[in-house]
Amino acid sequence: MTIQDIRTETTPFEGPFHKPVHPAHFRILKGDLQVPFTRVELTNGDHFDRYATEGPGSDPEVGLPRLRDAWIAERDDTETYEGREVQLLDNGKAALRAGTHREEWKGERVAPRRAKPGKNLSQMHYAKRGEITPEMEYVALRENCDVELVRSEVASGRAIIPNNVNHPESEPMIIGRRFLVKVNANIGNSAVTSSIQEEVDKLTWAITWGTDTVMDLSTGDDIHTTREWIIRNSPVPIGTVPIYQALEKVNGEADKLTWEIFKDTVIEQCEQGVDYMTIHAGVLLRYVPLTANRVTGIVSRGGSIMAGWCLAHHQENFLYTHFDELCEIFQQYDVAFSLGDGLRPGATADANDAAQLGELRTLAELTERAWEYDVQVMVEGPGHVPLNLVEENVVLQQDWCKGAPFYTLGPLVTDIAPGYDHITSAIGAATIAMHGTAMLCYVTPKEHLGLPNRDDVKTGVITYKLSAHAADVAKGHPGARDWDDALSKARFEFRWRDQFSLSLDPHTAEAFHDETLPAENAKTAHFCSMCGPKFCSMKISQDVRDRFSGEMSPEDAAIGMKQKSEEFVELGRSVYVEPGA
Amino acid sequence: MTIQDIRTETTPFEGPFHKPVHPAHFRILKGDLQVPFTRVELTNGDHFDRYATEGPGSDPEVGLPRLRDAWIAERDDTETYEGREVQLLDNGKAALRAGTHREEWKGERVAPRRAKPGKNLSQMHYAKRGEITPEMEYVALRENCDVELVRSEVASGRAIIPNNVNHPESEPMIIGRRFLVKVNANIGNSAVTSSIQEEVDKLTWAITWGTDTVMDLSTGDDIHTTREWIIRNSPVPIGTVPIYQALEKVNGEADKLTWEIFKDTVIEQCEQGVDYMTIHAGVLLRYVPLTANRVTGIVSRGGSIMAGWCLAHHQENFLYTHFDELCEIFQQYDVAFSLGDGLRPGATADANDAAQLGELRTLAELTERAWEYDVQVMVEGPGHVPLNLVEENVVLQQDWCKGAPFYTLGPLVTDIAPGYDHITSAIGAATIAMHGTAMLCYVTPKEHLGLPNRDDVKTGVITYKLSAHAADVAKGHPGARDWDDALSKARFEFRWRDQFSLSLDPHTAEAFHDETLPAENAKTAHFCSMCGPKFCSMKISQDVRDRFSGEMSPEDAAIGMKQKSEEFVELGRSVYVEPGA
Repeated sequence: MTIQDIRTETTPFEGPFHKPVHPAHFRILKGDLQVPFTRVELTNGDHFDRYATEGPGSDPEVGLPRLRDAWIAERDDTETYEGREVQLLDNGKAALRAGTHREEWKGERVAPRRAKPGKNLSQMHYAKRGEITPEMEYVALRENCDVELVRSEVASGRAIIPNNVNHPESEPMIIGRRFLVKVNANIGNSAVTSSIQEEVDKLTWAITWGTDTVMDLSTGDDIHTTREWIIRNSPVPIGTVPIYQALEKVNGEADKLTWEIFKDTVIEQCEQGVDYMTIHAGVLLRYVPLTANRVTGIVSRGGSIMAGWCLAHHQENFLYTHFDELCEIFQQYDVAFSLGDGLRPGATADANDAAQLGELRTLAELTERAWEYDVQVMVEGPGHVPLNLVEENVVLQQDWCKGAPFYTLGPLVTDIAPGYDHITSAIGAATIAMHGTAMLCYVTPKEHLGLPNRDDVKTGVITYKLSAHAADVAKGHPGARDWDDALSKARFEFRWRDQFSLSLDPHTAEAFHDETLPAENAKTAHFCSMCGPKFCSMKISQDVRDRFSGEMSPEDAAIGMKQKSEEFVELGRSVYVEPGA
Repeated sequence: MTIQDIRTETTPFEGPFHKPVHPAHFRILKGDLQVPFTRVELTNGDHFDRYATEGPGSDPEVGLPRLRDAWIAERDDTETYEGREVQLLDNGKAALRAGTHREEWKGERVAPRRAKPGKNLSQMHYAKRGEITPEMEYVALRENCDVELVRSEVASGRAIIPNNVNHPESEPMIIGRRFLVKVNANIGNSAVTSSIQEEVDKLTWAITWGTDTVMDLSTGDDIHTTREWIIRNSPVPIGTVPIYQALEKVNGEADKLTWEIFKDTVIEQCEQGVDYMTIHAGVLLRYVPLTANRVTGIVSRGGSIMAGWCLAHHQENFLYTHFDELCEIFQQYDVAFSLGDGLRPGATADANDAAQLGELRTLAELTERAWEYDVQVMVEGPGHVPLNLVEENVVLQQDWCKGAPFYTLGPLVTDIAPGYDHITSAIGAATIAMHGTAMLCYVTPKEHLGLPNRDDVKTGVITYKLSAHAADVAKGHPGARDWDDALSKARFEFRWRDQFSLSLDPHTAEAFHDETLPAENAKTAHFCSMCGPKFCSMKISQDVRDRFSGEMSPEDAAIGMKQKSEEFVELGRSVYVEPGA
């Protein structure tokens, strides 16, 4: 079933809170499941439909409509329950000091859902049983592929649909190498900066520019409430690193962490609706010494927390020893594992070393253990890797982890350009995605230097969208190059307005054009500032086309050329182009 | 002979016009030939020496000292002569209208040099005869390699040293796959914007950030004078596309171009000191129809000029039919060919097609013809190419053109991101350089949209410097990764000031850091804004190192760990870090 052959009604969307990126963009809904796309209206009467992530838009204090409630209820395998009572500690020291939660979620409060006894809610579980869920149909429409491909890839573990039943606001999406390469944006406050409004604004900004998932990496105060605001307003899956919040609960003292505190934090987040969680269960005691002679040791925050705990207790990582219990929890909510690479290289010098690859072996073992519980899994990857060693990372991960989706941070291909690491990493990201990585975690210009602001989030998302798309094109993903061709055709035909509206960032494209040629008629002029009005290479190419269009051999062409050359001169040598002509 | 084993005196440079990028940067001169490097002084007492391109600095109205005059005179194979008289037409319509040159070069005027009858001045000619020139020694010092490698690579045509005898101000550099990957920055005015001062400022700005060569692509008025100012102030080789100026001389009417007008323009530029010229001699009549069914036809300006001429006259490209005469001219000044890819793809849809590869075959033929005259040659490449097709471009070029240096524009790996094409092209550039491309022509954020301003030039150069360096690291170029390791070590040791001064762009790195943590003591703090003062992953890694430094097996390590774990707790669980501690 593809969009072409299903009965599809295209409804222009009328949402009070939906703000399109560009006047030529419209949110449309296709098919019975009303799957959203961004329609780009072109000046030549055509249109181009793009995959859309920005959702219907929401009032931050109310949140999004609960799109999936009916689908979940209909499966009749969940129950609502009272759930864990929110504690002051969940919001950190500030709440403890104040004796109250400084901020509250203002929207509706809904009792959490979990699996009825003996049930398993994961999309992988349904897929293995051969069931096609609405989530799978929704994904097939978004990806314009056969729903059976979706089911079989999810069943095999080669793709995941991160979909906590307590985040029914989310629009189902899929992460796997057979599908469009996805992008994640990290947001979240920290000990040195904080504001819930800022973080919700970053979420909205990130999805506006096309991020496919968002991770809330908050480490400061009000973590619980910040996450509630983010999830209730997010049309994309939300990921977290629960060990960050757990560490706050033990006053930042890694050795004070316990399985009980961690488990309680995981349940707290399952009930809120977190769709996937980074779990650093591969940082084993025996791997820690392997980092001793690295240039930059352990750079993963989660990895070093667990290494610190192992050192303090001289015991095996409790995330590893309690992994089966985590699987039992995750299957009750359909939370997906993102197996963290706590020992990823933080410098090109440390790439693909014994510590990194040792951990990857363990992540492969854990992947298969999670699959025994039908829990969905993706595996995280580096980091800092020289360009010649990038491909090996995804080849080994796909082999060892039996095709489980790979989710990488960049990688950065050189260490010498702080301030430009969105670019050093975009090089590695496009390359590793071309070789089979399913999702790319963005890197912003602030990497290594500070916390991303609103502009950094936009730059990071757009840089990663172009990297992911470059990989889709390189993989020959069906229809991927149509977007390039639509824009290049507009460029060739001097449809400047269409060139802007088809761009990943229409505003920047138009602003850059106007810096050199601000005049309104330059938007329709058959020339650009590179060659100026007198001469234009695009124009002469069109003359060539007028003469030789259609399939024609160089020989046939040459024969026709003599007479054509005379016409050409008669035509007034139309290598000239007049402005606006 | 390498820098280690030659007697080298390191002289700090005292130039009134030299402005270092950063207070920790110094221009130093090494060896008998006083080869410049940028020394980065580190706070731990070490230093790191970087390849330097910015030259000694110059008063724009005086120009640079004539570094190579003595070397050239000593060879005694050149003669000075009166040279061609500068005509009003050389400066375009504005000069004709005004009846005078609107601007004049204010510095010293020196009679041009050319080869004595029967002599050949090219570095390739000397190299083939087994002669080691000062230019080759200079290059060997800059590249820290054996001078015989330089001579043999130049003799074989696998590398070039672009060095017009009429540009003695230039500091010799080499372009070839066995050497550091180089970067070119395009500047130049156009019909829609113009100012000599602006262009000289762009030149100075581009070399400040590390461009290895600069191309003056001016197409507007005052072309001759603008070029004079640029060459007299440039410590790096200058390239041009002479057909642009020739077209101005025939009022922009491609069909009015003649070999005589073109030849006169080439000699004009040879006498000024242009070091390499893009010649679109591969755009053959029979290839033109092959572009008819492309998405974007012919996008190279020079390519479409020659295609227009071929169409109008139905004759073979005069640059091809007169190629031997060009070789005879170039060998008298040591001007290098940059064989233009006039039929390069302008959209990913057109990559590696019959038109592009047909032209490449002809460029291979022309490469061998130029080598018969001992004229140095590099070959230009695309353009827009999907990432999976990038490697094929350099593999075919290196094979067909017998290893002649490849010089590519990007390539851009997707068409959908106008405004971000420095990034879409950096992905292709790093990849194609890793596979053997010798020089990368930068792309700025304004590509396809407008003319680069000062900021765009900086962004373009830095983006391409990081791409070129990523390729050097990926190729395992001797010493390339030392820079990465020096910066990563500074990062790991919280030497923030060193992290900034070792960056490609120290100002941006420091400014981004200060946005989150402006306080002065944050520059020495053992934490960063990502984790905050309470916890830091870098710090715990150092604890791991303290415990397990030196080569040690995981087993040995584990044995020692029990006692270490107790120490760790006694030590007050130093996963905490205090600000400034």
